[in-house]
Amino acid sequence: MTQGATAMLRTLLDAGVDTCFTNPGTSEMHFVAALDATPTMRAVLTLFEGVATGAADGYARMADRPAATLLHLGCGLGNGLANLHNARKARVPLVNIVGEHATHHAALDTPLQSDIATAARNISAWVRTAQQPATLGADVAEAVSVAQGPPGQVATLILPADVSWGEGASPAAPRPPATPAPADAARVAAIAQALREASAQGGRCALLLGGRALREPALREAGRIAAQLGLRLLGEVFPTRLTRGAGLPPVERLAYLAEMASVQLAGLTQLVLVDARPPVSFFAYPGQPSELTPDGCTLHTLAAPDEDVLASLSALVAALGAQAAVPALQPPWRPSAPRGKLTAEKVCKAVGHLLPEGAIVVDEAQTSGTLLPGFTAGAPRHELLALTGGAIGQGLQLALGAAVACPDRPVLALVGDGAAMYTLQALWSMARERAHVVSVIFNNRAYGILNLELQRVGAQRPGPRALAQFDLGQPALDFVQLAQGMGVSACRVDTAEAFTAALARALAQPGPQLIEAVVPSAFSGLKLRVLPWLLRALGQMPLPVARALKRKLAP
Amino acid sequence: MTQGATAMLRTLLDAGVDTCFTNPGTSEMHFVAALDATPTMRAVLTLFEGVATGAADGYARMADRPAATLLHLGCGLGNGLANLHNARKARVPLVNIVGEHATHHAALDTPLQSDIATAARNISAWVRTAQQPATLGADVAEAVSVAQGPPGQVATLILPADVSWGEGASPAAPRPPATPAPADAARVAAIAQALREASAQGGRCALLLGGRALREPALREAGRIAAQLGLRLLGEVFPTRLTRGAGLPPVERLAYLAEMASVQLAGLTQLVLVDARPPVSFFAYPGQPSELTPDGCTLHTLAAPDEDVLASLSALVAALGAQAAVPALQPPWRPSAPRGKLTAEKVCKAVGHLLPEGAIVVDEAQTSGTLLPGFTAGAPRHELLALTGGAIGQGLQLALGAAVACPDRPVLALVGDGAAMYTLQALWSMARERAHVVSVIFNNRAYGILNLELQRVGAQRPGPRALAQFDLGQPALDFVQLAQGMGVSACRVDTAEAFTAALARALAQPGPQLIEAVVPSAFSGLKLRVLPWLLRALGQMPLPVARALKRKLAP
Repeated sequence: MTQGATAMLRTLLDAGVDTCFTNPGTSEMHFVAALDATPTMRAVLTLFEGVATGAADGYARMADRPAATLLHLGCGLGNGLANLHNARKARVPLVNIVGEHATHHAALDTPLQSDIATAARNISAWVRTAQQPATLGADVAEAVSVAQGPPGQVATLILPADVSWGEGASPAAPRPPATPAPADAARVAAIAQALREASAQGGRCALLLGGRALREPALREAGRIAAQLGLRLLGEVFPTRLTRGAGLPPVERLAYLAEMASVQLAGLTQLVLVDARPPVSFFAYPGQPSELTPDGCTLHTLAAPDEDVLASLSALVAALGAQAAVPALQPPWRPSAPRGKLTAEKVCKAVGHLLPEGAIVVDEAQTSGTLLPGFTAGAPRHELLALTGGAIGQGLQLALGAAVACPDRPVLALVGDGAAMYTLQALWSMARERAHVVSVIFNNRAYGILNLELQRVGAQRPGPRALAQFDLGQPALDFVQLAQGMGVSACRVDTAEAFTAALARALAQPGPQLIEAVVPSAFSGLKLRVLPWLLRALGQMPLPVARALKRKLAP
Repeated sequence: MTQGATAMLRTLLDAGVDTCFTNPGTSEMHFVAALDATPTMRAVLTLFEGVATGAADGYARMADRPAATLLHLGCGLGNGLANLHNARKARVPLVNIVGEHATHHAALDTPLQSDIATAARNISAWVRTAQQPATLGADVAEAVSVAQGPPGQVATLILPADVSWGEGASPAAPRPPATPAPADAARVAAIAQALREASAQGGRCALLLGGRALREPALREAGRIAAQLGLRLLGEVFPTRLTRGAGLPPVERLAYLAEMASVQLAGLTQLVLVDARPPVSFFAYPGQPSELTPDGCTLHTLAAPDEDVLASLSALVAALGAQAAVPALQPPWRPSAPRGKLTAEKVCKAVGHLLPEGAIVVDEAQTSGTLLPGFTAGAPRHELLALTGGAIGQGLQLALGAAVACPDRPVLALVGDGAAMYTLQALWSMARERAHVVSVIFNNRAYGILNLELQRVGAQRPGPRALAQFDLGQPALDFVQLAQGMGVSACRVDTAEAFTAALARALAQPGPQLIEAVVPSAFSGLKLRVLPWLLRALGQMPLPVARALKRKLAP
């Protein structure tokens, strides 16, 4: 029998949760005090709760098991909500621990009192307020079990201070992992028949892969199906974790811009969802459809997120007799080193030129990162982690969490200037943890994507007061000083040669580094129209799709 | 008839809301585009939503009317929640505008979809989702009216993109302001009688002033009551806005530490709440009471927040026949310029030495600012804005908002290092707006208050892993680089002479300045025990209270 907080930490450790990302306050002091009694629990301090929650997401994507957070009351949860939203959309496991006032204190409406459970429900599959020390261990074991899913989920445990400090608690044993079922045989047979018939009649078919279907064994099964029937492998726009590079079946990711995605999807007659949702536009635009599945296209669901995705794909392979089919694999290819004045494209090119085997690439570069997938398609095998929930301000902490999970792999975070400024405090935790993260900040001194979006929503001639809302240049942000101010070495570059050299240097060193890449704004009308050819040239798009897209983007 | 967004901005302007603090995204593009058609609406761009909401709070405290926010969907609201919580507890008026996906888009569970209304209810007195352009003007007029109260409240208007971009909207006329009622005569008479009788019998009586009772006319009425009956004027721990300094009736603020506040309250037999809540401990501690009203003390409520506070006090003055009573006024006094190695106390002393007439002081210095009220008690008249809701990470943006509301008054923000790092992005908006804010960061390289709190919750011998959770020194934060990286001039000082000179210089210059004050940790057992004498010497505490407190803090 022991204090609640100690029993909690022991239960977490027994269930395989040995890392927590914290920003504690007074009501969490017993959790903090218990850290000395549980030395195998790694506590990563952050300066802001949004760093803690984003890092727990990044950790789970790479470790395939949850980390815990430790947040201070409802306000700490509020600060962490945006990245918990991203984690929820990523379907990662995450044990979200939120301190609460002692039970007898909560009724007094003291200054920090707020309704934690309601705020937590927005982002949690499971919310529980611990009631007493005796049951806290079981609460924690259940939280870990729910978080692990499948699918991975955010489980929020609200921990009143008196439950944490109370005596009479015991650690609880971990719950056995859930065993997800594969797609049933009838569903598999029906999909196999639909695909066979459509292919035989010259119909256009594709698999849309998401979630765990973008990891290696699943990709290879999907590649067999593609090879057998000549269908396309599409990937969701913002993957949780996509394993890619030379030697793996390549996936054509749907574009963020609905105008482009609808061209990619045009003419499809059968679309099979594998741990993915039907394709939709990210935002709504006046007069534009939000649902992107083409008219006349039949949607099938091979595997939902709570099913066994790999076994379902294997069953479809078997039903199609494709066991011996040879998937098309991405040939190795690297772009040459870029030269001259730095641009966003040249940054992406240099990344493709240098990306090391096993790297983890976090992409939150919005407009600037458009060409990254193309330039890194043939690089050595690597992982790509994307902004799953659209809540900007995640890239740096995702990288922090990935580096904590995989200390032997280099992590490269590509982040826009606007995005970086939401939760730049991640840099301090990188320095504190000596995380091997190379952060590349695209500094185009603008919310570049909003300049584009303003045109897309139909505001054709924005005035100076509107445009000032996207201007990050007055005053200019100096990311070198900002990084150094948090203990991270940094440099600023504005030529391709200097960027390539800085990146090579940073990748070769341990610990965090930041490179401020000064680039012009990424998008202009001209570049947008050239994009289809670039994407085609980079193997990211079949020729007919690129042609159709070019017609669509022509004025 | 016009677009929804334009009608919305015109309605805001007609109702006197001419400032908005923004961090827009795609779903708010029509609001942004409408700014050019409404040039009298000042749009202050922030890099993070928590800056926008905290600045709107600071603006309202000084302008006595609401600003609007503009936040991007549920995640933007999440990022702004902590400071909306503080605004709610401050009872300031605030029109919180949250963009939402277009109505037809919300059902598709796209990546950024979340339940905005539920999250908003936590911090809003009023939540509405606009349904169509034709009724948007009326929605906005109602939001402003609800926000203005009294009491001031957060009114959240959720604005779907299609309502914003749709045609057929008209501006709506502002609603007439509400007229709050004063305390009824019977209540006033009963309180007057209770106070008179208790005073006659040698009972100890006090008024506990909060909210609008801490502004000048109310303070003077309270001072008359105090003079007439010899009772004490207590103030709530964290005031929204306290007008103080030489020539004003001084108020003894309750201490943050419950151990100290309970000594301040000990022996009271009558406590009259004036726009204040019964005194409670900020946090709960094992074995300690959370309610601080002493046994045997009768609580009265003279005026609730939704009543006319000033008129209620005037009625009590009349009932007591105290119209001619002369309130005790704070005599002018400034400490001398401090000398030698810099400490937190010397920073407070230098502030008292230099504080200019009309200054606005924002206090989020936690442990370091303990002596600030004493050293500035006799300074020229100034305003004090405190952290009302306990959600740390508010001081800098509160100062930004106050400076936008009062461009002719110097604003001094005193902020701890830990607190500053939650939402340091406020500095960038200060630079962009050329706000006259002098930010003083107490850098003691620690979450100083948590070191104290760990002892208070009963963890007597914390180990190194617990203590590491409060250590902000590895790596050290360099606030000069951080400020310069966001375009704010900054310097670092570690002597009292250098600090005083830097503060004098900064106060004399337009635009934002930051001073990093390198200080040792503020609290030790010894200092805690000396505190009562310091507070007594500074006129912040009657001698018997100081004596009792010293006994309590003795080991």
